[in-house]
Amino acid sequence: MENLNLGILGSGQLGWMMIQEARKLPVKFGVMDSGERGPAVSTSDFYMKQTDYRKFVDSCDFVTYEFENVGIDGLKYADDEQKLRPGLLPVKLKKDRSLEKEYMASNGFPTAPFTVAETTSEARRACRDFGKSVIKYASGGYDGKGQIYVRTDEDIDRVEIDGKCIVEEMIEFECELSVIASRDSRGKILMHTPSFNYNQSGILIYNYAPFPNSRAMEITSALLKKMEYIGVMGVEFFLRGNEVLVNEFAPRVHNTGHHTLSGSTISQFEQHVRTVLDMPLTGPRLLKPSAMVNIIGRKLDRDLLETILKTEDSKVYWYGKDDARKKRKMGHVNLLADTVDDLKEKVEKTIQMLYPDGVSSYL
Amino acid sequence: MENLNLGILGSGQLGWMMIQEARKLPVKFGVMDSGERGPAVSTSDFYMKQTDYRKFVDSCDFVTYEFENVGIDGLKYADDEQKLRPGLLPVKLKKDRSLEKEYMASNGFPTAPFTVAETTSEARRACRDFGKSVIKYASGGYDGKGQIYVRTDEDIDRVEIDGKCIVEEMIEFECELSVIASRDSRGKILMHTPSFNYNQSGILIYNYAPFPNSRAMEITSALLKKMEYIGVMGVEFFLRGNEVLVNEFAPRVHNTGHHTLSGSTISQFEQHVRTVLDMPLTGPRLLKPSAMVNIIGRKLDRDLLETILKTEDSKVYWYGKDDARKKRKMGHVNLLADTVDDLKEKVEKTIQMLYPDGVSSYL
Repeated sequence: MENLNLGILGSGQLGWMMIQEARKLPVKFGVMDSGERGPAVSTSDFYMKQTDYRKFVDSCDFVTYEFENVGIDGLKYADDEQKLRPGLLPVKLKKDRSLEKEYMASNGFPTAPFTVAETTSEARRACRDFGKSVIKYASGGYDGKGQIYVRTDEDIDRVEIDGKCIVEEMIEFECELSVIASRDSRGKILMHTPSFNYNQSGILIYNYAPFPNSRAMEITSALLKKMEYIGVMGVEFFLRGNEVLVNEFAPRVHNTGHHTLSGSTISQFEQHVRTVLDMPLTGPRLLKPSAMVNIIGRKLDRDLLETILKTEDSKVYWYGKDDARKKRKMGHVNLLADTVDDLKEKVEKTIQMLYPDGVSSYL
Repeated sequence: MENLNLGILGSGQLGWMMIQEARKLPVKFGVMDSGERGPAVSTSDFYMKQTDYRKFVDSCDFVTYEFENVGIDGLKYADDEQKLRPGLLPVKLKKDRSLEKEYMASNGFPTAPFTVAETTSEARRACRDFGKSVIKYASGGYDGKGQIYVRTDEDIDRVEIDGKCIVEEMIEFECELSVIASRDSRGKILMHTPSFNYNQSGILIYNYAPFPNSRAMEITSALLKKMEYIGVMGVEFFLRGNEVLVNEFAPRVHNTGHHTLSGSTISQFEQHVRTVLDMPLTGPRLLKPSAMVNIIGRKLDRDLLETILKTEDSKVYWYGKDDARKKRKMGHVNLLADTVDDLKEKVEKTIQMLYPDGVSSYL
């Protein structure tokens, strides 16, 4: 058969893993970025810069993205050509998080109480109303960048914003969890078992599945349906008692789904590619308790690599980035175990190997 | 850390899968072939032709092969430089199968009775001694090519050979099985669960695991040790009652190990790369009954691809070759199931999808 051409906007590790995982299929992969040439470029079949977006889109049967903040021209043109999956709406909601929040609220998806503030005085007023709160700029920033935590009156007096923000009540919650799910063009929805996620300073440190939560799965399913979404989505939740609140969604494969590379019948990456190319898929099923630990802000040396690989059923994914800046995701470790308790122990040990002085100095 | 450079001699699908599976590690992959540019070339980091073997070997930390019949100059030079894994001995034994047979016999590994014939009259005499026999040329030919089956006196009278052959007694056996195993430079041996293999006209059609056989595992272990082998080896056996006989070994990743891409904690491909690069590994464990069906001598069309992908937990590996000649391995399908019976049913259905008029017309 003729190869299908799939275009990926963005060249980061998510695209890199997408290509690795779907290389088995009769598909050619194109990558487009604004010129930074991330890891996905070297494993692609063709590469173009954002300025060539028309040629790129014309070369592809379908176009998807692995990063929300990609050039709007390519997105719009791909959408005009009816090739963009999962479409423009999710990008719009992510480019302005106030729209995301309002979309959730207006469609009845449970979130923490929030308000949108355009000025410092509006922001301070909202902080006073909520007591403890988190301020997030509506655009720019991810992985906890650009978030302000407001706990005291002094904190409120120090608040200064210079652009549209969401002020969110800092709710008490037991933990965070997420669901990785896909919806195809016929409306069929398939979900991975939810995972427990541990974040620090807004960055995912590790996660593991299974962490069953039927309410989170129902909400994810309703969200995919409401958006008429095509592809894989990651939805993050706060767990509070019996209740879950949507934290945010990611219109793409997601860091909390990397463990599916080892422990599931199909990874989120192959799932996404098969879904956006209208290829059937089944499952996904979790074969073993499965975890991921991020490698953040540090390099690997041979000794450390060997130590990690000695752990039973461990896999190292190294994204091949040169510069190990703080907060930068350089790779991850996948782990399997027969029980969740064994798995947690492996996670703990792996974190000690990677961050002997604690993870905070790498964030 | 600095990337390690692994050189692969041969550019076929075995190298292609090796690179796909080990791309996650901090390793760069070089491919060298005699100019035919198989599937592995497009996924490699660097490529050279056989004539540049010195430059190629000098660029690599270690060199391995994915095909026995590769240029001897590169092999010898890599061996001189102490970079060749699994070494020269296995290649010598495979380049002249009479040496392989004699190696097995002289080291006490059980095989079918055989004799080496240099002339037609020697071959006919051996055939008469054995009754039914199989004649295989000592060099050249694989996947059943160049084999002569001799059952009757008329068959014997028709025997004509023009080079060294092995004449082997055509033994009665229940089935074929194989073991995929690795040995590292410290002597640690790790094995996948044996698989049941179904061959037709000397070509593997499908196989599945588990098909436990401790005797086959013992023999494989002894063979790896005897050869001081480093890397993954596939060993094929005939099962006859309680006894197993070595059919042949392959000094590389092996077609009967492709199912490990889906159903095991680690695939034979990553296992091989980690072993030859002195990276630790654990397991391997089979997570679910796991099967593979070869796609031979035919192309895929969109309908067939979709039909196969609709089978629960199926994966399609398409090697991207253009010319679907008879007997040519074009790709394979991996299948998982909860029980061996369910798995066999899926295998049967997949074979019907691929070969509606029977597999023999594709061989």
